Amino acid sequence: MITKVPKNAWYPAWLREVLESIRPLEGELQVKVQARLNCLTRPPGSLGRLEEAARQYAVIRGQERPKLQKKVVYIFAADHGVTEEGVSAYPRTVTAQMVYHILRGGAAINVLARHVGAEVRVVDIGVDHDFNQLAGLIHKKVLRGTRNLGKGPAMTRQEALIAMEEGCGLARQAAEDGIDLLGTGDIGIGNAIPSSAIAAVMTGKPAHAVTGKGTGHEAKGLRQQNRIIEQAIELNRPDPRDPLDVLAKVGGLENAGIAGFLLGAAACKVPVVVEGFISAAGALIAVRLHPPIRDYIYISHRSAERGHRVMCAALGLPPLLDLDLRLGEGTGACLGISLVEAGVKVLNEMAIFEEATASQRS
Amino acid sequence: MITKVPKNAWYPAWLREVLESIRPLEGELQVKVQARLNCLTRPPGSLGRLEEAARQYAVIRGQERPKLQKKVVYIFAADHGVTEEGVSAYPRTVTAQMVYHILRGGAAINVLARHVGAEVRVVDIGVDHDFNQLAGLIHKKVLRGTRNLGKGPAMTRQEALIAMEEGCGLARQAAEDGIDLLGTGDIGIGNAIPSSAIAAVMTGKPAHAVTGKGTGHEAKGLRQQNRIIEQAIELNRPDPRDPLDVLAKVGGLENAGIAGFLLGAAACKVPVVVEGFISAAGALIAVRLHPPIRDYIYISHRSAERGHRVMCAALGLPPLLDLDLRLGEGTGACLGISLVEAGVKVLNEMAIFEEATASQRS
Repeated sequence: MITKVPKNAWYPAWLREVLESIRPLEGELQVKVQARLNCLTRPPGSLGRLEEAARQYAVIRGQERPKLQKKVVYIFAADHGVTEEGVSAYPRTVTAQMVYHILRGGAAINVLARHVGAEVRVVDIGVDHDFNQLAGLIHKKVLRGTRNLGKGPAMTRQEALIAMEEGCGLARQAAEDGIDLLGTGDIGIGNAIPSSAIAAVMTGKPAHAVTGKGTGHEAKGLRQQNRIIEQAIELNRPDPRDPLDVLAKVGGLENAGIAGFLLGAAACKVPVVVEGFISAAGALIAVRLHPPIRDYIYISHRSAERGHRVMCAALGLPPLLDLDLRLGEGTGACLGISLVEAGVKVLNEMAIFEEATASQRS
Repeated sequence: MITKVPKNAWYPAWLREVLESIRPLEGELQVKVQARLNCLTRPPGSLGRLEEAARQYAVIRGQERPKLQKKVVYIFAADHGVTEEGVSAYPRTVTAQMVYHILRGGAAINVLARHVGAEVRVVDIGVDHDFNQLAGLIHKKVLRGTRNLGKGPAMTRQEALIAMEEGCGLARQAAEDGIDLLGTGDIGIGNAIPSSAIAAVMTGKPAHAVTGKGTGHEAKGLRQQNRIIEQAIELNRPDPRDPLDVLAKVGGLENAGIAGFLLGAAACKVPVVVEGFISAAGALIAVRLHPPIRDYIYISHRSAERGHRVMCAALGLPPLLDLDLRLGEGTGACLGISLVEAGVKVLNEMAIFEEATASQRS
């Protein structure tokens, strides 16, 4: 059930197959899981969104009392041709430096992943740096960064598809490795611009409604950013009915990798906690390609990026947390993973009324 | 600096001493901790409220890199005379049953406390049940429940003060035991009514602006609840300038215990994550007694109870989470504890720019 794709839009066979394999969540199991939740020794619904998160997890996993042990956050790192416009708060070389930094374990994501018991895996999907055979890094470089979307298409359709296929493959491998819950994250100087551009095209909003100050606190040139995004859209004319066209022309390699990752995870019935602004742009591409994917993901937190609110509304998914985070890396995804896990533990570990002496309500 | 207390309001010596010992947080240390936060390898402020929570914790503890190991949630259990009006969704006996249930480890609070690595301690501050010498329970019963606030004062001023002193003593003992971070929780059928009454009197709002459906999902008689609260206020005439008068006349023993607990914890410089609606009413009493206490507490989550929003606004403290929780027990406090700990770990464990090769911004 691929909807509203223009007739001339070309999808490769692997993508058609993945999309066809992803079905909306099964209603019968929803009812069963809800019935168990209703028997837990507390007033029904009183654990609010923890219960909803647990129910969603159980139904995706296809089990009334699903295990949740292995948790991994995949961080997609990429560079962006648009950084040549000089609008970012940090130089482009910081992308590669952050990759090294995370692999050494000293970044915020490392701290928070340890806190919630998740593993961190870093994917080079398109960093403009030669990592050689660097151990610990997942080497899936498609390009050394995209081209400048302000001057032409950021990627060809084929390049975007390759990045998606890599992301999809990583999720499939994760499922084979027995990972129960996934998270996404991102690193990439300048990556807010393509994500804002995707948000603008996919929601039909003007650039200024979907752009913010970016990760850099004192980043100047917000007006310049908006001008670049408007120019990119005018120049490249991405077709909002064809998510791959939008992704290729104004997106980033990490958006593509993350979109593919979400497809692969949904196909393998592994839930994903989607981090912040950059990942949400990937999610928007994936969900527009195939709306049932929406059932398989959580949005970790409301990013401080203005465009994130617009994307969450477009996705129809409310974030779990609202902590004014705007770092990326997967930091919010870690905290979201911990909340989903809390909900699943409630489902699995709480006594039910039959087991407890606590009275049924009078 | 005890403010706005009516001249005839009587405070015992222990209470005056505790209040006098609690000072606003030290500005110099705030600056030092912020300076360290600014050196962490991420754009300043990009971890939003995690950073604020960490800074607050460090300043309360008086250390730039404070340890955070032992975490304990204290659950205050009490009964309420107002249950004789028949407005609660569960019978009064459920309070004692829930105490047993939590001590056996099968309740939601047990699951979530294990999830975040916190210990649970249950305090009988006023349950209408004889627990004898039940092991594992902290025996601090002041009364077997309050009197019916709809027919007269719920407690005498002396009874409320005894419950406060017990709570204060528990926090002091926790500090002596080396506990780093505390949480509060509550059990008590009917406890939303006194907490709503406290909220109404202390904020000057009408009953219907501070009452909700309570923990029980299908609890009927919201209008009856409002009528009881209005009647209690009219009959008892609690003086909003004298928090102890309000507490005694329309509050509950757990509100009193929690208020005292917050005083004791602040005096010992141990931060407290304050759970939901019932604890917030205790916090409102404590903060009105002595405004600097506000600096020593976190509000864990926005409760689904309508009055909670009003109390958070009156406290000037935004909740950390908004998950539509309305269970109590300390469930939200557990999740809040995990977030504070995440922030403190960021402060303690992240690399600073000097240590990392990641570039300073250009």
